[in-house]
Amino acid sequence: MNKIYNPKPETWSAILERPTKTVDDIEATVKGIFKEVQSKGDFAVAKYTSLFDGVSVPDLEVSQTEIATAIATISNELKQAIQLAKSNIEKFHAAQKTNRVVVETIEGVNCWQEKRPIQKIGLYIPGGTAPLFSTVLMLAVPANLAGCSEIVLCSPPDKNGNINPAILYAAYLCGVTKILKIGGIQAIAGMTFGTVTIPKVYKIFGPGNQFVTVAKQLATQFGVAIDMPAGPSELLIVADDTAVSAFVASDLLSQAEHGTDSQVILVSTSKELIDEVEKEIQTQLDVLPRKAIAEKAIANSKLIFVENDTIALELINEYGPEHFIICTQDEAFYIDNIANAGSVFIGNYTPESAGDYASGTNHTLPTNGYAKNYSGVNLDSFTKAMTFQKISPIGIQKIGSAIEIMAEAEGLQAHKNAVTLRLKALKNDQ
Amino acid sequence: MNKIYNPKPETWSAILERPTKTVDDIEATVKGIFKEVQSKGDFAVAKYTSLFDGVSVPDLEVSQTEIATAIATISNELKQAIQLAKSNIEKFHAAQKTNRVVVETIEGVNCWQEKRPIQKIGLYIPGGTAPLFSTVLMLAVPANLAGCSEIVLCSPPDKNGNINPAILYAAYLCGVTKILKIGGIQAIAGMTFGTVTIPKVYKIFGPGNQFVTVAKQLATQFGVAIDMPAGPSELLIVADDTAVSAFVASDLLSQAEHGTDSQVILVSTSKELIDEVEKEIQTQLDVLPRKAIAEKAIANSKLIFVENDTIALELINEYGPEHFIICTQDEAFYIDNIANAGSVFIGNYTPESAGDYASGTNHTLPTNGYAKNYSGVNLDSFTKAMTFQKISPIGIQKIGSAIEIMAEAEGLQAHKNAVTLRLKALKNDQ
Repeated sequence: MNKIYNPKPETWSAILERPTKTVDDIEATVKGIFKEVQSKGDFAVAKYTSLFDGVSVPDLEVSQTEIATAIATISNELKQAIQLAKSNIEKFHAAQKTNRVVVETIEGVNCWQEKRPIQKIGLYIPGGTAPLFSTVLMLAVPANLAGCSEIVLCSPPDKNGNINPAILYAAYLCGVTKILKIGGIQAIAGMTFGTVTIPKVYKIFGPGNQFVTVAKQLATQFGVAIDMPAGPSELLIVADDTAVSAFVASDLLSQAEHGTDSQVILVSTSKELIDEVEKEIQTQLDVLPRKAIAEKAIANSKLIFVENDTIALELINEYGPEHFIICTQDEAFYIDNIANAGSVFIGNYTPESAGDYASGTNHTLPTNGYAKNYSGVNLDSFTKAMTFQKISPIGIQKIGSAIEIMAEAEGLQAHKNAVTLRLKALKNDQ
Repeated sequence: MNKIYNPKPETWSAILERPTKTVDDIEATVKGIFKEVQSKGDFAVAKYTSLFDGVSVPDLEVSQTEIATAIATISNELKQAIQLAKSNIEKFHAAQKTNRVVVETIEGVNCWQEKRPIQKIGLYIPGGTAPLFSTVLMLAVPANLAGCSEIVLCSPPDKNGNINPAILYAAYLCGVTKILKIGGIQAIAGMTFGTVTIPKVYKIFGPGNQFVTVAKQLATQFGVAIDMPAGPSELLIVADDTAVSAFVASDLLSQAEHGTDSQVILVSTSKELIDEVEKEIQTQLDVLPRKAIAEKAIANSKLIFVENDTIALELINEYGPEHFIICTQDEAFYIDNIANAGSVFIGNYTPESAGDYASGTNHTLPTNGYAKNYSGVNLDSFTKAMTFQKISPIGIQKIGSAIEIMAEAEGLQAHKNAVTLRLKALKNDQ
C-alpha cells in the first residue's frame, strides 16, 4: 500500500491517475464481429457463442419452463433477500418520477416538457464466476417503472447452455420481456442491428469485460445509446478519528475484490487511522476467498494524509470518485460541498455494499472521473425529455416580431417568413 | 419533390432513410489537430486559426472593451427581441428544476437524489454567414440556471479577428464567463485538453460543421461529455384538411433553408393538401435569399399520403423527427401517442421558428432518429444526478442480512464481510 503524506496539489493528478488501457487491438476484433452479425445475423451469433462460450445452444431464448425450473432451485432465503432489495430499489426510483412541466412563458405561448419512455432497451448481464443478478434489479426495475415496452436481457450461457438461475429469477421478477442466452460482443452487436431472434434496441445498459465495453462504444456509432462509458470500479473513503478502522478496511476490501484494476483510496486527516486501517486490511485480507484479486488491487491502493477537510475536499472533487464514503466528525461539510461523485455513503453504518445491493440507490455509476459529467443510472436514464408548444393567435402576435427580428439578424429569411405569413393572416382576419 | 401514396410499412425505413456521411477522411485530420493541440497548446491553436480562419489573433480572449463596443452596435430592436427570447427560455428552463428526492426506503435507510451542476462547460458557436446568437441563449441560459461555475464560449474570428457582435451581446447577457476567438477543431481540442488560454471543460455543447461534429465525438474518447450526437436538421409535419397550406409550406421551407442536407417531410391524410402545399412551396421558394440551398433540400423532401391517423402515427414514430408539427383535426391523438420526437409544435399558429427563437423551449434537439433515445438539451443537461444514503444502526440491521445473502450468492465475500463486521459490532454493543 502506498502511504502519501501531504501531497502538493500539483502532484494530485499524478497520484490519482487511473489505469488506462489501450483498446486498439480489441477494436479490430469487435468491429469484425459487428460486421458479421450485421450481415449474417443469428448464424454469426451461434458461431461466436460456440467459439467464446464453448457451447451450442439450440434455442437462444430462455423458455417459460426454464424460468420455472430456475425459480424452483432458488432458496427462499435468497428469494426474500432479492425481493427486499427490489422493493427498496423500486421505492427510491419511483420517487424520481417527475411531473409534466407546464409553463405559459408569455400570454398565449404554452410550453411543456414531458418524459416519455425509451421504447426498446437492452440489458447486458455478464456471466462468469459472479452472477450479477443484483444488476438485473438495478436496470430492470427502473426500466419497468419508466414504462419501456420492450426489455431485452442478454447473458452468456454456461457450458451446459444455461443462464444462472438467480439471474433468471431476478429477470422474471422485474418484468424483463425477453431473455436471451447470448454473451459478449455478439450480444451487443445483435441488440444493435437486430437479428431474427434478437430485437434491435434503442439503448443498451450494463457492465461487462473490455470486449463488451468496446462493443458498447462501437454500438453508439450505429445510433444506439448506452448508459455511460465504463471503467474499473473505484471507491474513495474520507475518514478521521471518528471512523472505525475495521469498517473502513472492510469497505476498501469490498471494492478491491472486484478486480485487480479496482481503485481504492483512503483520504484522512489522521495518521493514526491510516496506520490502523493498514493493519486491519492485512488481517481481513487473509481470510478472503478472492484474496489473490483483492491483494493486487490493494497493492496499488493509496492512503493519503492531508492537513484538513478543506484540502481533502478539493482533492476528492478533483478525483470524482464513483463511490464516496464519508466517515468524519463533520459530515455536513462533505455532503454539502462534494461536487463530483457517483454515489455517497454517509456514516459508520453505511457500507458501500448496502448501495450495491439493497439500500435502494442504483449501483450503475460513473467511474474513471465521469462523475464530473455523467449521472449514475436513474429513472430518467430510461426516458427522454420531449418538449411541446402550442401557440394561440394572441401568442404569435406577442412573440412574432421578436422571432422576425432575430431570424432576419441570423440571415434566415424563411424562418422569418413562417411568422410573417401567420401575422398577416391574423391581421386580415381582424 | 417526391410524392408517395400509401407506402407499405416494409418500405418505410427506405423512404425515411437519412443521408449518412462517411467521416473516415475527416477523422484523420481531426485526430492530427487534437494531437497537436494536446502537445503544443496555444501555439497549435494559433497555427490552425491562421490556417482555417485566415487571421492572426493577438489576444484570443474577447476583452471587456470589445464586448462594450459590440453591445453599442446592436440595434435596440434586436436587443429587445433577444431579451424577450431570453426571458421565455429562462422561465421554461427554470421550471424544470427538480427538488431533492428523499426516501426512507425502509426504517433507518435514508436515500436521496440531488442534481448538482457540471462545474465546467464549453459552448461552441459556429461562425460563418448565419451568426447563431440564438444558440448562445439556448445553451448559456440553462447553464447559468443550473449553476455551472465556468461557462466558456468558443467561436471562430472573422477576417478582421472579431466575433459577431450579436453573439457577444447574447454571451454577455447570459453570463458566459469567458469568450474565446477560436473556431473549429482547434476549439474543441482546446476545451478537451486545456491550454494556457483555453480552460479544460467537462462537457461540450453546440452545433457545428462536419469537422466540429467529428471533433466532439473524438473529445468523448478523452473523458469529455457532449450534448448529443449531431446530424442534419429535420422537420416532419403531419397535416390534414384543417391545416393552412401556405403555413405548412413556409414551415417546410424554414427547415429546408438550413442546408442542402436538411430533411423535410409532410405526412398527410389529404391528397388535396399535399398538392396545395407543393404549389405553395414553389411560390414561396422563388423569393427566398437562400433559395439555392432550400431548393436542393426540397428536391429530396417527401410528401407522403397515408389512409388514416393511426398509420401516420406509426410511420412518424418509426422516423422519430427532431421537429414535429401537428396541424390536424385530432391534435390530442398525436400529442398523446407520439413516442419519438425532439420538440412538438401544435396547431396552425405554432411555426417551428417559434421554438427556434422565442417560445421558451430549447432548439438543441436530437436529429437523425436520436429522438428515440436522447433528450433535447434541457436544464438537466447541465447537471448530474448524484445519490446519497445514510443508514442508521437500525437500518443496517433491517437490510444487513439481505445484503449478506446476496453478496454470498454473487461470490463476493468481502462485500458480505463489510456488513457482517458492522452487525457483530452492534450485537456486542447491546
